[in-house]
Amino acid sequence: MYDIAKIRSDFPILSREVNGKPLVYLDNGASAQKPRVVIDAMTRMYEDEYSNVHRGLHTLSNIATEKYEGVRAIVAKFLKVKDADEIVFTTGSTEGINLISYAWAAPRLQPGDEIVLSVLEHHANIVPWHFLRERQGVKLVWVEPEADGSLPPEKVLEAVTERTKLIAITHMSNVLGTLVDVKTIAHAAREKGIATLVDGSQGAVHGPVDVEDLGCDFYAITGHKLYGPSGSGAIFIRKERMAEMRPFLGGGDMIDTVTRDSVTYNKPPMKFEAGTPGIVQQVGMGVALDYLMQIGMENIAAHERGLRDYAQEKLTGLNWLNVQGNAPGKGAIFSLTLNGPAHPHDISTILDKRGVAVRAGSHCAMPLMEWLGVSATARASFGMYNTREEVDALVSALELCHELLS
Amino acid sequence: MYDIAKIRSDFPILSREVNGKPLVYLDNGASAQKPRVVIDAMTRMYEDEYSNVHRGLHTLSNIATEKYEGVRAIVAKFLKVKDADEIVFTTGSTEGINLISYAWAAPRLQPGDEIVLSVLEHHANIVPWHFLRERQGVKLVWVEPEADGSLPPEKVLEAVTERTKLIAITHMSNVLGTLVDVKTIAHAAREKGIATLVDGSQGAVHGPVDVEDLGCDFYAITGHKLYGPSGSGAIFIRKERMAEMRPFLGGGDMIDTVTRDSVTYNKPPMKFEAGTPGIVQQVGMGVALDYLMQIGMENIAAHERGLRDYAQEKLTGLNWLNVQGNAPGKGAIFSLTLNGPAHPHDISTILDKRGVAVRAGSHCAMPLMEWLGVSATARASFGMYNTREEVDALVSALELCHELLS
Repeated sequence: MYDIAKIRSDFPILSREVNGKPLVYLDNGASAQKPRVVIDAMTRMYEDEYSNVHRGLHTLSNIATEKYEGVRAIVAKFLKVKDADEIVFTTGSTEGINLISYAWAAPRLQPGDEIVLSVLEHHANIVPWHFLRERQGVKLVWVEPEADGSLPPEKVLEAVTERTKLIAITHMSNVLGTLVDVKTIAHAAREKGIATLVDGSQGAVHGPVDVEDLGCDFYAITGHKLYGPSGSGAIFIRKERMAEMRPFLGGGDMIDTVTRDSVTYNKPPMKFEAGTPGIVQQVGMGVALDYLMQIGMENIAAHERGLRDYAQEKLTGLNWLNVQGNAPGKGAIFSLTLNGPAHPHDISTILDKRGVAVRAGSHCAMPLMEWLGVSATARASFGMYNTREEVDALVSALELCHELLS
Repeated sequence: MYDIAKIRSDFPILSREVNGKPLVYLDNGASAQKPRVVIDAMTRMYEDEYSNVHRGLHTLSNIATEKYEGVRAIVAKFLKVKDADEIVFTTGSTEGINLISYAWAAPRLQPGDEIVLSVLEHHANIVPWHFLRERQGVKLVWVEPEADGSLPPEKVLEAVTERTKLIAITHMSNVLGTLVDVKTIAHAAREKGIATLVDGSQGAVHGPVDVEDLGCDFYAITGHKLYGPSGSGAIFIRKERMAEMRPFLGGGDMIDTVTRDSVTYNKPPMKFEAGTPGIVQQVGMGVALDYLMQIGMENIAAHERGLRDYAQEKLTGLNWLNVQGNAPGKGAIFSLTLNGPAHPHDISTILDKRGVAVRAGSHCAMPLMEWLGVSATARASFGMYNTREEVDALVSALELCHELLS
């Protein structure tokens, strides 16, 4: 039984009003709200258990280190990774993907080598590869989705050539909600010795992830979308890929010895974690993941499927509204435009008057906007705490938009 | 009037006990504790004002963006930088220095070009330059301190040759407390067209900083040592240097346009800030810096000078104890070893029984350890909330160490 009332009461911000209306928070694709347990864990740590981690030896440092390092196992459990040493802490998916670009790809890829990526990608999974194009002549090979926004794995695999070194692919589109069959892609790529990086920024939020089963080499997650603190995150890196990587950021913790003439590096995962980390926010992310696992990602996914179906039914009934993308099995993410000259920014602004928070813009996915033939959309993205009543509130506010803008 | 009782009461953790004794927190060099205003600001934001920043348009996003972007001006005020656009947000000094290494130095320095750095440096200001040595044949030129730990600016400038492109220098040693005259260094370097990077991780914590007056090109600070949250930070980058830099991390926010074939970048400072930032911890850092400015960095420096003098007097009276470094004007940071075989780890462990938190190890400064002829030290590092009574508690606990370990 999915106790939505209980879940909503776990999130303090959901009881606030915006412009005199109850907050209807549908901007989860950009960042999710935080449950009380996450906020309290951070407050408590700062109030009573804070110190720098590692190298400490005093009581507070030992407490902080134990809490912080304990998160690695929580992330591993969340992603169903057997060996927690395959989890590297990051500040989010952006840093995670850049880590792979700088530390794995940059020293290995030669001019003319190819990276396959989809038009669905977020800039975080595009720009790091553009760097390699600009700086060392790597070629980007793009795969377009089908008209409904779906991305058949065969299409991705057809783009593979003998020069392909990496497939960089999203697990779920942050604009269309398209769920990508990364398992088929990763397994086929693996047989050809090609690495697969999965951007799990959205995918890991909306359903269970089993990284071993997916078979990918890299899987990046971002804590703030997973109901955890800003600035938290992690990336799964398969052991054999770790062995191929040079370090990324240099500083404390990632070294073994430093002299004037030489430096040797710590063992992974520490080799890829430099300096004082985001101690408290990583601890907060651990609490958030525990919270999610307690409720169950399958249950959250089922709840969100219900919201998706209900919203799809309601939204497709509005003949003055375009819903971008309706791939089968998509997540509860809806990119909307109005017929006529109304800009999505206006939609967002009018919805806000009704307390409905959606995001308007290109959603860091300009190649996808170009493919859709729009400059921007208004995006309503649902999360674990949203309700059917909130779908109704969205639809009612959209009707107001239609009235005012058409 | 420096109201130490009031200040102490601002920090919740200082009222706790460790091993049945009042906490005496002397591990500020590793990370400082947080005042109530900082903790509350973060809690409040998560409870009532949280959203992703930029590109938002809805109320919560506008509130969060305003708070977050407001911190840039606070950092500028703290560092006495006129143009807040010269402040780039980071997750701490380590990321800040790596940003300069990757985005400014790596594309500019040729094999045989030289970087001058001191033996006092923290690994965060060493390893990023070792990368350039390993990867592109840059030469590291080391400057040793004087016997007392001081670092005359002339000595640094004597190491400059025609191949010198950068001087990377700490403002204050995290091991010895040595305050470096970076102003003389930066001004002389500037005349020769050589850039100066100052690691302000400690320097900015213990006294006022006027970056325009110092004349350096880069000044890195780290929020968690400045009584702010973990994972917060910033770096000052002089406008003309920004213009010489390519981007570092790729992703959202740092771009202007992205197509399949090309990418153009946002204006600085955004060009150097990719993806969802550490929103709430940066807001927390802003509150911490406001708190410090309200008390006054001059007043904090004066308070800490008093602690330093008192501690120096007490510690030098113990003839079985070695205090490493006594440069004139040093900060209240004391690296200690006992005569005989006792390891600094044992000192830390015994002190902890008395509730005294000090750090033992190489303090991410192995070249300095080698120069000192020790493998490790126990370091007592003082902060704005420490007292003479805590110096007495340290000395008393050290006497116990002497008793137990000699």
